[in-house]
Amino acid sequence: MTDLPPVIVFDVNETLSDMSPIAERFTDVGAPAHLAPLWFAGLLRDAFGLTAAGTSERFAALADGALRTTLHGVTLAPGRDVDAAVAHVLDGFAQLPVHPDVPDGVRALRATGARLVTLSNGSAQVAEQLLGRAGIREEFERLLSVEDAGVWKPAPASYAYAAAECGVDPAEMMLVAVHPWDVDGADRAGLTTAWVNRTGAPYPGHHRPPGRTVAALTDLAASPG
Amino acid sequence: MTDLPPVIVFDVNETLSDMSPIAERFTDVGAPAHLAPLWFAGLLRDAFGLTAAGTSERFAALADGALRTTLHGVTLAPGRDVDAAVAHVLDGFAQLPVHPDVPDGVRALRATGARLVTLSNGSAQVAEQLLGRAGIREEFERLLSVEDAGVWKPAPASYAYAAAECGVDPAEMMLVAVHPWDVDGADRAGLTTAWVNRTGAPYPGHHRPPGRTVAALTDLAASPG
Repeated sequence: MTDLPPVIVFDVNETLSDMSPIAERFTDVGAPAHLAPLWFAGLLRDAFGLTAAGTSERFAALADGALRTTLHGVTLAPGRDVDAAVAHVLDGFAQLPVHPDVPDGVRALRATGARLVTLSNGSAQVAEQLLGRAGIREEFERLLSVEDAGVWKPAPASYAYAAAECGVDPAEMMLVAVHPWDVDGADRAGLTTAWVNRTGAPYPGHHRPPGRTVAALTDLAASPG
Repeated sequence: MTDLPPVIVFDVNETLSDMSPIAERFTDVGAPAHLAPLWFAGLLRDAFGLTAAGTSERFAALADGALRTTLHGVTLAPGRDVDAAVAHVLDGFAQLPVHPDVPDGVRALRATGARLVTLSNGSAQVAEQLLGRAGIREEFERLLSVEDAGVWKPAPASYAYAAAECGVDPAEMMLVAVHPWDVDGADRAGLTTAWVNRTGAPYPGHHRPPGRTVAALTDLAASPG
């Protein structure tokens, strides 16, 4: 038996979704593939900056704005203006697959009796469609978005919102994420944490360490707490 | 005559310093040059995430941690282990030049009678050495760091700290920065703002717009408020 808490809350972007097809969208529009991670880092930098400044903005607006900054100076493919390029990349974001380990991992965790929810800095609709395409929507009790919390992760109020929505104490929830900043924020908010490290990357010393580290979601139901 | 406020507060990294030599440091250690902006975006993402989560960490620690993440998976040049590669890149960060427009721009602003200070998310020592190498240290009254504010820009308390240190109301200060997130945060904290846009990049719609936009610091003393 595993030592799982009553509620498991999953991050969505990159934790459940596989963002690698986004790099192909960049090359489609004439931009180097290596701009894809720069775009996403800049998007989160700006979003967290706004959070630190005491405000918030929708993910979709930040994705659009950060992409226009990232594509500045790029000679786009013939027939693409910047609006068309932005639309092509963002359209790809709405059609991502889940990582290969996600369906079995999610079903195994649900089979333990844990309640499963998501908490995304993106919209609930994107999560709904992602999990629907993967055939695992019904494993999740709720799909939550920071758009309803009024504040982005990793601000403490975002995790408190999720706990309140689920009717549990933060300590009764485990956050599962690939992003160290999310693990850190959840830990500070009183949740337990699991870091999914699919790439073998080092965990940054400037963030609080995860309670558990797994190489795939399928290891989470199996690994001892 | 220009319509400048009594105190002008400059961001340091990228606003005064020219970070382009960092890309060469990446290639020195066997990493692609395009990882340099990804490193810096990830550093700020993590820093602002910590700020949003209610804590802070020194710039140098974040620079080190984010660099190790960025270099993960890179085949380093022969004779370089990751510690040596990190040291080589960070050593370059401590030896950056200022942008070509900075010395004349700073002197012109000082000549208007405005009080000049810096407010960096990095250490005051890095700013001290940067401005000393450029021969313009004496133009500045104070070199401030968020390390003494206890909170990073763009959190409002960081700008309030700078105003308090200068003994003025935030509305009597103008922030000068290349980063839209800094312009946005300063505006929310009650400062006036100027955006230095050396590259012609679009200003993101998700951030509050600057009071002025200039292509170089030398335009700031000359342009009307």
